[in-house]
Amino acid sequence: MQSEQDHPHAGQPVDSQPVERESTGRIVISVDAMGGDRGPSAVVAGCVQSLRDNPRIDILLHGDSAALEPLIAREPALAGRLSLVHADRAVTMNDKPSHVMRHGKDTSMWSAIAALKDGRGHAAVSCGNTGALMAVSMLQLRRMEGVNRPAIACLWPARGHHGFNTMLDVGADVKAEAEDLLAYAIMGVTYFRNGFGEPRPRVGLLNVGTEEHKGRAEIKAAHELIARHEETGRYEYVGFVEGSDIPSERVDVIVTDGFTGNVALKTGEGTAKLISDLLRQSLTSGPLAMLAALLARGALRRLSTRIDPRRVNGGVFLGLNGTVVKSHGSADATGVAAAIGLAAKLAQSGYQGRMAERLVIAAKTAQDAAPSGEQE
Amino acid sequence: MQSEQDHPHAGQPVDSQPVERESTGRIVISVDAMGGDRGPSAVVAGCVQSLRDNPRIDILLHGDSAALEPLIAREPALAGRLSLVHADRAVTMNDKPSHVMRHGKDTSMWSAIAALKDGRGHAAVSCGNTGALMAVSMLQLRRMEGVNRPAIACLWPARGHHGFNTMLDVGADVKAEAEDLLAYAIMGVTYFRNGFGEPRPRVGLLNVGTEEHKGRAEIKAAHELIARHEETGRYEYVGFVEGSDIPSERVDVIVTDGFTGNVALKTGEGTAKLISDLLRQSLTSGPLAMLAALLARGALRRLSTRIDPRRVNGGVFLGLNGTVVKSHGSADATGVAAAIGLAAKLAQSGYQGRMAERLVIAAKTAQDAAPSGEQE
Repeated sequence: MQSEQDHPHAGQPVDSQPVERESTGRIVISVDAMGGDRGPSAVVAGCVQSLRDNPRIDILLHGDSAALEPLIAREPALAGRLSLVHADRAVTMNDKPSHVMRHGKDTSMWSAIAALKDGRGHAAVSCGNTGALMAVSMLQLRRMEGVNRPAIACLWPARGHHGFNTMLDVGADVKAEAEDLLAYAIMGVTYFRNGFGEPRPRVGLLNVGTEEHKGRAEIKAAHELIARHEETGRYEYVGFVEGSDIPSERVDVIVTDGFTGNVALKTGEGTAKLISDLLRQSLTSGPLAMLAALLARGALRRLSTRIDPRRVNGGVFLGLNGTVVKSHGSADATGVAAAIGLAAKLAQSGYQGRMAERLVIAAKTAQDAAPSGEQE
Repeated sequence: MQSEQDHPHAGQPVDSQPVERESTGRIVISVDAMGGDRGPSAVVAGCVQSLRDNPRIDILLHGDSAALEPLIAREPALAGRLSLVHADRAVTMNDKPSHVMRHGKDTSMWSAIAALKDGRGHAAVSCGNTGALMAVSMLQLRRMEGVNRPAIACLWPARGHHGFNTMLDVGADVKAEAEDLLAYAIMGVTYFRNGFGEPRPRVGLLNVGTEEHKGRAEIKAAHELIARHEETGRYEYVGFVEGSDIPSERVDVIVTDGFTGNVALKTGEGTAKLISDLLRQSLTSGPLAMLAALLARGALRRLSTRIDPRRVNGGVFLGLNGTVVKSHGSADATGVAAAIGLAAKLAQSGYQGRMAERLVIAAKTAQDAAPSGEQE
């Protein structure tokens, strides 16, 4: 079984054809069992759920076999579809990425990415330390040509007819130059197009206002670059967007640096949590309100599903020669299953090859171009 | 009538005693009638509401008298408590701040701030262009000693027993150095203490993680500085906080640069708006849900009031020799009245003098201190 991840030329664009695994029908997801806040039992429960949801998935599970074997033995549904790969240690949330890069070869996280690198798995999932996962992934999988800073993309519940927007970077790197922001636009668009079938996604650049004279220097430069590459990236550039536009119908892909994106993501999550807690309090504040909550429970459940962060669990690492999905550290079985499902969907889609082609073109034209006047 | 704004030494710390106007009992708010999205009629309606709410307020209203006189004539409640100051022009949302600084002397915004500078008003309110308002305010009122970058502070609905946290900067400047972030901590704490009577507010520094090795260089430097100045600023420093902590009970004052703060503020507002719209859809999705909405309407109204952005309308400019409140551009009468009420409360509190003293001490010790080892 050949996959795009074991392409012999690391750093080279991978084949843009649908990958060979499509013919064999099996999708192998390499899962790090350790490092989540809820421990390996939540991850194993998530594996059970994802295998039930998708009969084409097989799982390579990496972690401490003494802890995992009893959990696996209890689940007959895993027999024949889940293989255990023992790893002595686990990366903790407090480990520094640079330390894990140097001394982390015997960890379950390293092992999960190594399986992706050598082609045993088609995509990887981990609930562990984000910084360490990115460092280990960059070291083993290497960046795509034309990518200086890989990014993490998230899905965001939104008003548009797809129900979601995507935003990147939400935490891979605290900085981004104009060229990085252009690469994020191209990567985010390919991801969104493949995920939602939208032929020409709309890109917005996150700023503090929509007027052209506002914002930081690198953002003004990115504004020019992204506008110039509409044809290369096959997107429509809508210009600057603000925080309030993130869940709007104006835009599909929101581009920003990893510091701002991470703060925005967590602010949105925190706000949603506050409001849903206050709503719950309101609806238990007296007998009338409780009766109301009972009558409306179907409608409220649909709303809560619509904005449930577990449903869209999984930040996707873009710009690497391999598909890595970072699950929320606090993910439960439903969350882990969503991340595995997303990894499988991405592994099947062949988006990596198309993304690589566009990134190479954009990097070349951005390099060659005179600073002004270039039109495609 | 003497006020802290007409202190003869611009740039010097102002008197820390409650201002003299306390004895006369009248508080004069200088209001820019033009530049809001809803036009001068919303501002006049807000004036009516605020005068009704607070019998000690008088208003100086700045704008085009041809447009304003008929609006004022219709409201008998304004007689004797509102004086009109004619201005030929209005600043628009698209005007560049630098242009308004050079050519804006005949605008209503300029006039509103000038009244503050020469002591005719005790605090100013405008719904207009934020960048221009900050530029005009800096030019006329000058920065406090020890302040390099003034900041805009907002209130944020939160879980704590005060019901609000404050965050700054939410948009005065797209950049902030470590020393600016320290000044923001001191200014935000004085503001919060005077607003909510909290003797020792807790300060958090917004970052992408709570671990000490994370984040940008200027944030790591600010982390040290803010920790060292707990006694100068009379606050408790809780360390790094994340976007999800903004509405939490962990912290009272969230410190960040104006780019990140503005994105976070608007993301929070956008998320709250999305959820409340989806909730409204859910509760009109069928007869049972509509009956439920009817039964729960008291509880839902209390919730909606709790998170209503109009209730806490008004970003406060901190670090200037004068109190300027920036109302939301889209504010209606209730929003404008809230901003005028906030301006009046701040003008009475005497917080400016205490803030100035602490800023001078912090700036001096930060300058004198050896980079390490200083303890207070």
